[in-house]
Amino acid sequence: MGSRGRLRWGRGAGRLGPGAEDGAGDAGAARGLAGAAGPGAGRGHRLLGAPLARPRARRVLLLSGPGRGRLRRCEIRLAAGPAGGEFLLRCARLGPGSPKAAFALSRDGRPTKVQRSIFSECFCALGLDELGRATGEPRYRREARALLEAVARWVREDPTELGRPLLVGATPHEPLAEPMMLLCLAEQLGDGAGGPLAELEGWCARRLLCHLQRDGSAVLENVSPDGKELPGCLGRQQNPGHAIEAGWFLLRFAQRQGDAALAAQAIEGFMVRPFQAGWDPEHGGLFAFQDADGLCPTQLEWNMKLWWPHAEAMVAFLMAYAHSREPALLRLFDQVAAYAFQRFRDPEHGEWFGYLAQDGKVALTIKGGPFKGCFHVPRALHLCEELLDKLLREP
Amino acid sequence: MGSRGRLRWGRGAGRLGPGAEDGAGDAGAARGLAGAAGPGAGRGHRLLGAPLARPRARRVLLLSGPGRGRLRRCEIRLAAGPAGGEFLLRCARLGPGSPKAAFALSRDGRPTKVQRSIFSECFCALGLDELGRATGEPRYRREARALLEAVARWVREDPTELGRPLLVGATPHEPLAEPMMLLCLAEQLGDGAGGPLAELEGWCARRLLCHLQRDGSAVLENVSPDGKELPGCLGRQQNPGHAIEAGWFLLRFAQRQGDAALAAQAIEGFMVRPFQAGWDPEHGGLFAFQDADGLCPTQLEWNMKLWWPHAEAMVAFLMAYAHSREPALLRLFDQVAAYAFQRFRDPEHGEWFGYLAQDGKVALTIKGGPFKGCFHVPRALHLCEELLDKLLREP
Repeated sequence: MGSRGRLRWGRGAGRLGPGAEDGAGDAGAARGLAGAAGPGAGRGHRLLGAPLARPRARRVLLLSGPGRGRLRRCEIRLAAGPAGGEFLLRCARLGPGSPKAAFALSRDGRPTKVQRSIFSECFCALGLDELGRATGEPRYRREARALLEAVARWVREDPTELGRPLLVGATPHEPLAEPMMLLCLAEQLGDGAGGPLAELEGWCARRLLCHLQRDGSAVLENVSPDGKELPGCLGRQQNPGHAIEAGWFLLRFAQRQGDAALAAQAIEGFMVRPFQAGWDPEHGGLFAFQDADGLCPTQLEWNMKLWWPHAEAMVAFLMAYAHSREPALLRLFDQVAAYAFQRFRDPEHGEWFGYLAQDGKVALTIKGGPFKGCFHVPRALHLCEELLDKLLREP
Repeated sequence: MGSRGRLRWGRGAGRLGPGAEDGAGDAGAARGLAGAAGPGAGRGHRLLGAPLARPRARRVLLLSGPGRGRLRRCEIRLAAGPAGGEFLLRCARLGPGSPKAAFALSRDGRPTKVQRSIFSECFCALGLDELGRATGEPRYRREARALLEAVARWVREDPTELGRPLLVGATPHEPLAEPMMLLCLAEQLGDGAGGPLAELEGWCARRLLCHLQRDGSAVLENVSPDGKELPGCLGRQQNPGHAIEAGWFLLRFAQRQGDAALAAQAIEGFMVRPFQAGWDPEHGGLFAFQDADGLCPTQLEWNMKLWWPHAEAMVAFLMAYAHSREPALLRLFDQVAAYAFQRFRDPEHGEWFGYLAQDGKVALTIKGGPFKGCFHVPRALHLCEELLDKLLREP
């Protein structure tokens, strides 16, 4: 069958390509994962020498490993995971008792930057929880749970501690990324359907569905607190990568719930349609931002091609195919993966580039930076390999 | 003489090209200034409908007019200037007694966004001071002076009121834009050399010179509080547009002081060298960001061509030529102006585009946005016209 033939595309290359994201020159993790990663941070790049708290937290997650697949065999895991975990326990929070985690730290662990958002805390909690599961050390999961509770409080009840000023003219809105990240966190920290975080997961899923607007034809990045489209460019803003990543979080939630209708909605509404609208018909690749009415976004990088939406789309379409066995979904996986390995991969020095111009040429030669760390690429490679192995093992 | 022949380039086109920056659809100002501006906000663009405080403040400055040239004859000035001034007096500050001004306001004047920097207050003060001079109404200049005092306090003494968290690991640094904007403000609000703001102007000039590093070969965007180069990508960051804009602020200061050596340093160190290093040899145009060691910047838009560095470079090189009569400087003006009018100008709908890809193609079709308002283009056109008129009147 044609679809099975195409599936071998991933195997024919040996493994899923030589390259994995890495934040601060710690190429060992990437090598352990991908087998053939290059010699490190790549050409033309020297960072400040400061380990970044968010990449560090995300690397802890990957080094701890989901307990299955090649990542489990990565020797660095037992050494680097707990070392990173101890560093996070000691240094991630802005100060003793502070609910906020730093976005960036100096080499010796002092906070250098903090964001007025939930994301540093989310990635820190993801990493610590997985490390707690891998090592059996309860301190890590306790800290992860405390961070989750802070994030849930900020998103669902009161954002005051984030430090954003409350301005009387500001339009109240919910960014897609908030219920999306919280759902990811609840899945990681929970224990499957019906666990202690089931109510939170259900809330996140319902909130995500509020972002599916215009009769299911558009995922909007920002909606009103009561789930309606907002006026102006804030309301029309779209981020295809976010929609597609939220799609596979939602699909996994639907699978845990055994909710076939929700699974179909996740695939069609959050993956297929945002992909069709977000894929550049001229040069290929997913746009970073779009406007739901086709107007010009205000983000300067709107037409650039970023690594992470492509990594997430690979996961999404392979997972969707594994769920539905719809050959068109496998073809979409193939389309994204072919673009990603052709354009983002650095055949000379290993790793993926992060930022391409609209025409697919590398715009930034950095392999790690303030927002690109050891997370999306290895997570995507790991999950895709796992999905492909499972598909190939089936009769 | 060749240089005089080239000078006619600006006149041969009738006036300095049909187009002027405009923030919120108020095309009348642009038309009034440039004579032949297009019908408004251009194609493919609908903003939120919210007037932005910074563009509004910058438009007030332009509508008030420096009291000379065509801007003075702009009918809209007397109506829109005071209306904008009253709006700013009533709405710009976050609340009664607040030292901070909003970055953006809702249509009815409620704050929607605030930045943890000095710039909203600077542009508000520039606009109100000029309006006060144009109308003779002391309230505007009183408010401008109060804003200047707040900005000077934040930059020179204590930034606490800006709301940036003080993080123990953060590298203390001075951004070039702070003494640069403060010098611009001190010139606007002061009354020439020896006036009440002379001490502040001198301080700004000395701080600007600290950013001229590496034996005068590089203007660095961030230096240590004691004026040294900082390690890492923060220390290597360069913004050619900022350097060149700071160059003409510094040249005007040197002219007021009668300091020929400083004027030469402003031209060579802040204009010519940053231009030579920042001009894209392949496609033309000034890069948005650079790394002083030639490494890859971390800003996604680093290789894009933005309107304002080109507008500022036109002013800088024409002013430098008028000062020194060095024909090479007029050729640089010509080079920048030719690029700007060929690439940024929208011959169909008037106005300038703001954001080009590296190859010079329009990347964003918006004419106004969160950072592009009615400021750099009309200021540059006005100043260039004034400089050209003066040069042409000479025997």
